[in-house]
Formats: sequence, C-alpha cells, structure tokens
Amino acid sequence: MSMSDGLTSDTNRGTERLVVIGGDAAGMSAASQARRLRGPDELEIVAFERGHFTSYSACGIPYWVSGDVPDRDRLIARTSEEHRARDIDLRMRTEVTEIDVPGNRVRARDLETGAESWTSYDKLVIATGARPIRPELPGVDAPGVHGVQTLDDGQALLDTLAALDATEGRRAVVVGAGYIGVEMAEALIKRGYEVTVVNRGEEPMSTLDPDMGRLVHEAMEGLGITMVNDTAVTKLLTGDDGRVRAVATEDAEYPADVVVLGIGVRPETTLAQAAGLPLGDHGGLLTDLAMRVRGHENIWAGGDCVEVLDLVSGRERHIALGTHANKHGQVIGANAGGGYATFPGVVGTAVSKVCDLEIARTGLREKDAHRAGLRFETVTIESTNRAGYYPGAALMTVKMLAEARTGRLLGVQIVGREGTAKRVDVAAVALTAGMTVDQMTALDLGYAPPFSPVWDPVLVAARKASTAVRKGTS
Amino acid sequence: MSMSDGLTSDTNRGTERLVVIGGDAAGMSAASQARRLRGPDELEIVAFERGHFTSYSACGIPYWVSGDVPDRDRLIARTSEEHRARDIDLRMRTEVTEIDVPGNRVRARDLETGAESWTSYDKLVIATGARPIRPELPGVDAPGVHGVQTLDDGQALLDTLAALDATEGRRAVVVGAGYIGVEMAEALIKRGYEVTVVNRGEEPMSTLDPDMGRLVHEAMEGLGITMVNDTAVTKLLTGDDGRVRAVATEDAEYPADVVVLGIGVRPETTLAQAAGLPLGDHGGLLTDLAMRVRGHENIWAGGDCVEVLDLVSGRERHIALGTHANKHGQVIGANAGGGYATFPGVVGTAVSKVCDLEIARTGLREKDAHRAGLRFETVTIESTNRAGYYPGAALMTVKMLAEARTGRLLGVQIVGREGTAKRVDVAAVALTAGMTVDQMTALDLGYAPPFSPVWDPVLVAARKASTAVRKGTS
Repeated sequence: MSMSDGLTSDTNRGTERLVVIGGDAAGMSAASQARRLRGPDELEIVAFERGHFTSYSACGIPYWVSGDVPDRDRLIARTSEEHRARDIDLRMRTEVTEIDVPGNRVRARDLETGAESWTSYDKLVIATGARPIRPELPGVDAPGVHGVQTLDDGQALLDTLAALDATEGRRAVVVGAGYIGVEMAEALIKRGYEVTVVNRGEEPMSTLDPDMGRLVHEAMEGLGITMVNDTAVTKLLTGDDGRVRAVATEDAEYPADVVVLGIGVRPETTLAQAAGLPLGDHGGLLTDLAMRVRGHENIWAGGDCVEVLDLVSGRERHIALGTHANKHGQVIGANAGGGYATFPGVVGTAVSKVCDLEIARTGLREKDAHRAGLRFETVTIESTNRAGYYPGAALMTVKMLAEARTGRLLGVQIVGREGTAKRVDVAAVALTAGMTVDQMTALDLGYAPPFSPVWDPVLVAARKASTAVRKGTS
Repeated sequence: MSMSDGLTSDTNRGTERLVVIGGDAAGMSAASQARRLRGPDELEIVAFERGHFTSYSACGIPYWVSGDVPDRDRLIARTSEEHRARDIDLRMRTEVTEIDVPGNRVRARDLETGAESWTSYDKLVIATGARPIRPELPGVDAPGVHGVQTLDDGQALLDTLAALDATEGRRAVVVGAGYIGVEMAEALIKRGYEVTVVNRGEEPMSTLDPDMGRLVHEAMEGLGITMVNDTAVTKLLTGDDGRVRAVATEDAEYPADVVVLGIGVRPETTLAQAAGLPLGDHGGLLTDLAMRVRGHENIWAGGDCVEVLDLVSGRERHIALGTHANKHGQVIGANAGGGYATFPGVVGTAVSKVCDLEIARTGLREKDAHRAGLRFETVTIESTNRAGYYPGAALMTVKMLAEARTGRLLGVQIVGREGTAKRVDVAAVALTAGMTVDQMTALDLGYAPPFSPVWDPVLVAARKASTAVRKGTS
C-alpha cells in the first residue's frame, strides 16, 4: 500500500485532521463534539458516509412505517447541510474502502462517480455501524422482502405497503421476534395487516428469560398477532410475478404479501478487520474506556461497530442501540478534541412496546448469570402500575435476579402496561451502583396514587428477592 | 402514676405483648409484619385506633373527592376485620391518652363508652401519625370549611359538595398550594368548580425551587385555576346561614361555596412529648436506624409522627408520606418480631400531578443546599418525554443541583407531562448511591422513541451539570 498507487492523495494541510468513517449517531456526534472543542482553524474534520442520510434515528423506523411518524425527515436529527454549516467536511455517498493504519490514511470511493482517493488523518474515528443479519435463504432477495435498518430500507418497505393498500386481507410475516420484530408487528397491525411472527426462539423477546417472554407472547396473541415460536424459516416462496408469496418453515407455509426481516444485526467491521484492528468474540471492535481502539493511540471507535463492557457480567457484549452510539460519539469527540471523557460500560438496559404492552429489561438474564459463573436467586412478583384503586391501574410483572450470598442485584425484567418501560431505569441505576436487593428495599422512590402503589413494584420485587437471598440455599 | 388509680389493668398473661398506638399505615404494617414472624402463641398484639378506619390511603382522598375513585372503601387497604382475622387485637374508636414509659403501659379510652383502662406492654409501637395544621383564623370552623386528612374529612367534604351540586357557578377556594392543595384544586376543577388557590409562598409547590414552581403556577392557570401567591389568608367570612361565603386576605375577598384547607401537617406527638420521649426540631419523634425511639430499647416509632434522616443533607426532616410509613412499619415489625431491619433514611422524593401536569422532586432545593452548608452548581434544561418526532412528545423541564468541586448530585426537580413523575426515581437512586453528575452522564437508561429521546432528559441535565461543575467558579 504505497503512496504511488496512482490515486490522488489529500495530505497537504497545516492543521490537524480528524477523519470520521460513518455519518450516523456515533460518527457525527463525535465530529460535532470535537468541533465544539476545537475550531476549524485548529482541527479539520472530514466525515465519510456511504448512504444518503446522516444522524438519523433507525429506532424510529417502525413508527414511520406504522404511520405514527408522518414523514422520513422527522427521523433525521441533523442533515448533512447542518453538519457542513458547522465546518464539518461531510462527504455523502462516499464509501471508505480501506484503512491504511501504518500510513494514517483511508481510501474512499465516490459512489456516484466511482472515483477513489486517499485521505490522510491525524486522528481517526471508526463508526461503521452494524449490518443486518440477512439469512442465506432461497427467495430472500425477492421483491416484497424487506429489512428495516436504514431509511432507504424503510422507504422501500413503505413503497411496498403503499402498493398493497388496495389489497383485501393483506398478510404480513415478520421473521424474528426481537425488538425490531415486535415493533414491526405492531406497525403492520396498525396498518391493517394480518400479522404472523415466525421466531426461532422458545418465546418472543429472547432478551428476556422465556417465562417473561411468554407474557409478551400472550399479549401479542391478544392483539391478534399469530405467534409461531421455536421455528426456523427454511425459505421464502415467490409467485409467478417473482414477488414473495409465503414464508416456509419445516412444517408449514405462511402466506405473505410482504415479509419483514427483523433478525438482528452484527457489527460492521469488515474494514477494521482488513486493517488488522482488534475484534472481540462478537465481531465488534475492542476499545479502551476512552473509546480508543486498543493499541492505537489515534484511532477511536464507537456505536454499533464496537463491543461494550457489560458492568454486571464483566464481559464484552455487542449491543446496537442509538443511545449508546450517541454516548460513544460524545466521549470520542471529547477525547479527539483534546478533552477527556470515558464510557464506563453498560448494564444492558432496553425498553420496547407492542401496542400498549411495555417491555423492559436490564442486567443479566438467568442464562447470562449462569454463563458469568454467578449463583443467584430469582423472584417474580405481580403488582400494578398505579395504586390499585386508581383508574387505569394495570398489572405489572417484575422478575428480579440477585446474587446468592451477597444479594447484589443482577438483573430485572418487567412486562406490563403504561409506566413499565422506564421503571426499569431504577434497576439500571442500582446495577450501576452495585446495590444489593436489600439496599433497594429502602429506596425512596416517587409515590402518589396515579403513579405507583404505596410499595413500588420494583420495591416489592426487591423485598421478595432480599428474603430469598437470606433464606437461600443457592 | 401508680397502678392503684382505680382503673382496670390488663397485665395478666403468659406471652409477650406488643402494643401499637395508631391503626394506619405504619402501625398496622408493623403489627402485620410482627405477626408474620411470630405467631399468637408467642406474641400477643394489641392495636389502638381512635378513628373509624384502619390502613387507608390518605393520599387517595383527592381522587375520591374528584370522582376518579368511586367509593371510600376502595381506599382501605385492610379492614379491621381483616386485621383481626390475623390475630391482631384491634381496638377501634379507642384513644390512647397516656404512655407510662416507666410502667410499660398505656392508658386508653373507649370513645364510645368513655371507659378507660391501662394495658401493659413488653414492646410498644408509636404510630400516631400527623395532625393537619389548622390555622387559628376567624371562621375556620364554619360549615363549608374542610380539611382532607382523614376518610371522615373526605366524607364531610363530599357531603358538602353533594349539597352544592345544584348550585350554578360553584366556587371553591383552596388554601395552600403544596401537594394536597394542588391535588384538591384538580379534584374541584374536575367537579366543575371555579377554583382559586390562595398560597402564602412565592409560587405553588414550595417543595420546589420558585423557578420550577413558576412552571406549575403557569400550568395551573392554563387549566383555568386562579392562583393567588404571596398572600396570607386573614379570615374566613361567613354568611347569614353561618356557612363560609368567602376567603379574605389583606387585600381582597375570594367568594367561596366551599373552602379546602391544604396547609400541611405536623407530627402528632402530644402523647410522646408528655411521656418524655425525645423529639426533634420539627416536633417528630427521634429514632435510631432500626426505628427504635432513641434511648428506649422496647419502643419503636414510625410513620408521620417521626423525623427521618435526610441522606443528602445529613439532617433530620419531617415528611408525611404513606410510602415511608409503610417502610417504617415493615422495619419496626421485623425488629419487634425478633428479626432485623433498618430504615437508612430518605432522599426526599415526592411526585404529584395537577391534571396532566406532573411534578417531581428529590434531594435538596437551592435553599436546602445553602442551609446544609453546601456550595453547588444549578442547571435547568428543557427536553421532551419521548423522541421529538414521536406522537405526543411534550416538553419536560429538569433542574439539577450538583455539589461544587465533587460534582455529587444534590437534587433534581422535574415538571412536565406524561413520563415526568417517575423519571425522578433515577435521581433518587443516584442520590442514594452518592453518584456524581459526571457518573450519571453514562447511566444506561432505557431508550426507545415512545419513552425517551436518545438522550434521556435526566442525562441531558447531568451533562450540563457536569460541565458546570468542571467550569465552576463556585
């Protein structure tokens, strides 16, 4: 990889240059934060984005598809023009094809013209995101089969749905029952589809233990969604017009006018791997606490392409979530801009909803705790989101894991109606602080009849867990 | 106080006896928890209650008055019959008139018959609650003037309102703009009254700093409530029929068909004081961490009659709140039943609402922090309860106090719409854990567009507070 490969090379400059690969949450947060700390006379910032959009909310796509969010542009937090107005040299539709680590430069291709050139850097931010897991199934590329990772994906799905609007008895099959799967099931129900969800796991939401996933399963069936669990898709069947017409499993065929793939994502680290940068067991880049790529003083990485430290298990995990990507970007931008910040890790908090059912989790599931070598007690309680006598009081189920002997909180899962999702934040903070379930029983949580029973459901679970630890034979 | 005072005396027994004074949350929780640990063959439990009800939710009274809760009995968590079925010798309408500490006995009067007798105890629980502050104003006892502390108060108010149902242009004046005042203003608006709130403070909700109280003020006016702040009531004017007809201040008269006093409460410690038990600066009983009255091995106290340790300021406070009373009862019952539990203290969390405006606070206000000798930074941010593009996204204002130099979180106040109240719990746990605002910026809080922007409002405030501490000149 010499400088004499015939390509133009942008190296001639007086100021320091920060190059950012990837123009979504992590990359552009890093760029913006660095710009806040260092003006353009001190730091040149060049950002490459291969797609059509910057800084958008992929998490918002299901609500755009459902119609709750009226148009695509509302999902864009900051446009390329806005970034450029802040003196960020943002090059859209330009894909970085190689990172030359020893040469401190990246090679990029303009996707419109095909032209390639090298750009040198003093500091590099890798924010290449994640790529959807697209199973190698016959028919997976047929018209009518859609992923929902990017705004382009969302637009393509909406175009398909618009063409189906006149069809009677429209049927949709969602493959996968994780966050994307259940949110897309809601979106398609709202658009008037008969929805079937085909799921490899024992229950939907494999980020929960199966006993809690069962509650989601029952609620989704109550919404009229057909749930097919413990089942792998074998192929996608197409009609004479080449469009998808059904999803086939070992045992059955599920007719479909449209198929949505919600199977999850993997870190997009092809470039990083080719450059010899360190990857973890889940395929994500490994960083230090300042989000520097391990062993590389002038390269940072963040967002969906990195692994993060799970503070409860002490291990690296891969979690693709916009809120982490934004925090990473903030930390990277502070450090690359000459300041100081760290990202200590995560506890694995995630919230979602299917219609009015809210789903929340943080910390370890039973199998995570086993895998981490922990012995633990598990309790599950039922309570309500409001005082029992207050109008609209609805059931809430809280499952709590506590370490045997020490009583340290290990994880919480909650399924219920209004007020469920963000209640898990109490447990997220308690996990971060290393609290025991016994300490949690005394937490001074907000109480008023419209918002909680006199014992908040999280406290009820903590009391029961505390008793289990005390009596525990584990 | 000899045993030869002519009264009958109940001392003859084989088992240990626990006597409880007060049959509401703290007292009956203590009795129930002790009973769970010790059967009736080991522990006799006698409880005295001077009123007509046990274990009821005083916090629910505004919602009963508003009509949200259809009947009184729904506010009763456990009836006297249910307590008796658990082998608790509950004596209703029986008032304890004296505690003889050296004699280990209490004197009680049957309010129906007037008969008095002594009951000896091995262990005593004082759970005498609080009494409403009833200002000594001319006219305060006139018909149409109501407190709202007890179920009897609530019933009397409802009877008054029922009699006014046919009146055109019904007008209510609420005196006081704390939790009870604002909740009663909502209840009366819902019942179709023109409502005026007369408040001595600069702004409503003096548990907030005035700048945050101002937001409540504006929202209440937006609901059609007339707010009169910085104004003391001088007298209540009555009509020819003797009923209240107006509330008078130095400058004006506010016509009223009904007046609700929501001025707050003081610890009810008349008995305890007469018995020489230790009281704090706010008139509440002082206990140790096991809720034992200081210096008395066999006397416990809890609920609205005690002072609690504020973990942030390091001082005792008086907070009348059902959730604390229940926790106290649990702790007392565990200890009196031969187990072990402690109540470490509070951080001062409180939540409320006026129609769809939610109000939350925890930790110290500016004046509390000054009084505690703390130097601090204050920041206020505006964000939304959901992702900005998600339907129903509404403004949320978060104020945060952090200690200068250390950056330790000192307090949070939040005013906004749905999702505001319980968001304060994040800060309550962080305060309990002694987190700094910088540590808080990395908290792994639940994120999904229906529940939070990608940066939760609490994190936005923590980031700003962290910057303020770093740059701070305080």
